[in-house]
Amino acid sequence: MNPRIPILKLYDCLLISIQWELDDQTALQFQEDLLREIHETNASGVVIDITSIDFIDSFIAKVLGDVIDMSKLMGAKVVITGIQPAVAITLIELGIRLENVLTALDLEKGLEKLHRELGD
Amino acid sequence: MNPRIPILKLYDCLLISIQWELDDQTALQFQEDLLREIHETNASGVVIDITSIDFIDSFIAKVLGDVIDMSKLMGAKVVITGIQPAVAITLIELGIRLENVLTALDLEKGLEKLHRELGD
Repeated sequence: MNPRIPILKLYDCLLISIQWELDDQTALQFQEDLLREIHETNASGVVIDITSIDFIDSFIAKVLGDVIDMSKLMGAKVVITGIQPAVAITLIELGIRLENVLTALDLEKGLEKLHRELGD
Repeated sequence: MNPRIPILKLYDCLLISIQWELDDQTALQFQEDLLREIHETNASGVVIDITSIDFIDSFIAKVLGDVIDMSKLMGAKVVITGIQPAVAITLIELGIRLENVLTALDLEKGLEKLHRELGD
């Protein structure tokens, strides 16, 4: 069974906590699931928490960058929370700057930032 | 890789969304993970959303009943949300009454019920 990443809907936000290293297939499945979920729920915000991830490879980093851009195109604001030092280093070294992406320390702060941005 | 069920910490609550049928090993791993997480985070409430589950067997039902009792022993209130008709039927037919367990229709209502119970 290929594990899928659960996407929780809480009011007008989607919450995702990635708690294990993703393989390529799971990452692509996640991308598809998240975009479908944004469409179906009319979510206006997405918080992706990657606190548990302490290693990211170039493929996963690209998928993550892509899914953020795609979500934005669909009208949802994305906050990435819990980027570990090693992940930040990898992202910058890979040239993935996640520009214009909101980031926060943890899920709570991410949600607060999102609500401020959405003007709640 | 054996998939684990992500447990999200949001303020003093833990949120879990079970979005696929559990196999026995994953269910036991979840039980262990949840209890450890309650201990580590001092969470006072837990919401387990099973909206996506439309079939539950006797082993999984027992693990779910057990984890609720265990969480209570550790001092955390548990709300189960999104019990589907077929799951409700199975639970009652198996004699698992989830007595004294709070239930709610969805994650939002579950959190609200939990906050009322916790007196927030």
